[in-house]
Amino acid sequence: MFAGCPFKILGQPKFVYDGKWLKMREVRFRKCDSSPEQVWESVHRRRDSNSKPDGVDVLAALHKDGKKYFILIKQYRIPMAGMCLEFPAGLIDDGETIEAAGLRELKEETGYTATKVLSCTKGKQGLSPGLADESLNFMMVEVDGDAPENKNPKQNLGDGEVIEVVLVECDRLLSYVELICTEVYVESVVYAFALGMNYAQRFL
Amino acid sequence: MFAGCPFKILGQPKFVYDGKWLKMREVRFRKCDSSPEQVWESVHRRRDSNSKPDGVDVLAALHKDGKKYFILIKQYRIPMAGMCLEFPAGLIDDGETIEAAGLRELKEETGYTATKVLSCTKGKQGLSPGLADESLNFMMVEVDGDAPENKNPKQNLGDGEVIEVVLVECDRLLSYVELICTEVYVESVVYAFALGMNYAQRFL
Repeated sequence: MFAGCPFKILGQPKFVYDGKWLKMREVRFRKCDSSPEQVWESVHRRRDSNSKPDGVDVLAALHKDGKKYFILIKQYRIPMAGMCLEFPAGLIDDGETIEAAGLRELKEETGYTATKVLSCTKGKQGLSPGLADESLNFMMVEVDGDAPENKNPKQNLGDGEVIEVVLVECDRLLSYVELICTEVYVESVVYAFALGMNYAQRFL
Repeated sequence: MFAGCPFKILGQPKFVYDGKWLKMREVRFRKCDSSPEQVWESVHRRRDSNSKPDGVDVLAALHKDGKKYFILIKQYRIPMAGMCLEFPAGLIDDGETIEAAGLRELKEETGYTATKVLSCTKGKQGLSPGLADESLNFMMVEVDGDAPENKNPKQNLGDGEVIEVVLVECDRLLSYVELICTEVYVESVVYAFALGMNYAQRFL
């Protein structure tokens, strides 16, 4: 399982804790024969190993009354013990395609129906590769806010979800996250996207 | 600790596994009185709780011979069991400022000395808020590649690190990650930054 690894892996990976949703793993290794033995702990979702990422983040641009907004969500996250600003997102169900999962999660979490899928990333993007093997894909969609199905968006939330929809004008995303980032946890991918937009506008 | 939480937290959070670096936590909750009891498992770094984020990601633009490059790194990640393309980054040491940590990690991991700090985010940006409380800040820096200290950059790596420096022309970041994302795991913040740049260029 550690093909291409530059470290010397010692023995077998060991699952040291087995929870309902998560497992904790310990891998013992050396950088080279003369280096001290080290241990790398990591966390893994309980799932059948497969080629798909765990989840999908939906970057949705809402066109409405001649303006453009990103559809973001704010929700309380028990692991962080606080409110987080995030892209609509969710885990991909068994047998579900990445695009279908993204469209479903956008609809459930925000009530909006995507009008057009602009792009979907390939491979798996690691969320926190030093800590976990969790991964996702990004899907970019356009939402026609003037279409009948998007006039009165209604969420359809699960038992563990309380979600507020936040619309942010596209060209103000960075100033918005800069303003609220000390009040709520802004998810790192949202902040990185905003910094990327700003970088392109200033320097390219 | 769960101030502002919309869920009904049941009992005290319980640490169910205590490793060398990581701890696993279980929180029992209900969405409301009539909802079923649920459990939220999460992972937490062993650290003194403090107001700083765990780490810092350095978004470094190298100016060299009239061209601009992002300084990225590629490294094998044991949790992912594969190679990852990432921003230079690292944990913030006790007593260290975020900026000092960012400059130190850039130098250690890539050999480059930043010439100018352009910005540093505030608050804490969650990396995977449904899974962990891990957080970081982003620091943007400029590196003068024609300066004497950056002519022959030399890494200074730790015992658990094997890192390759990757320079990608700034305006080609998205096409680069699109090309390699099925061969290596592209860290989600790198991909999100590239998508943000592309979004601004196409739509704003």
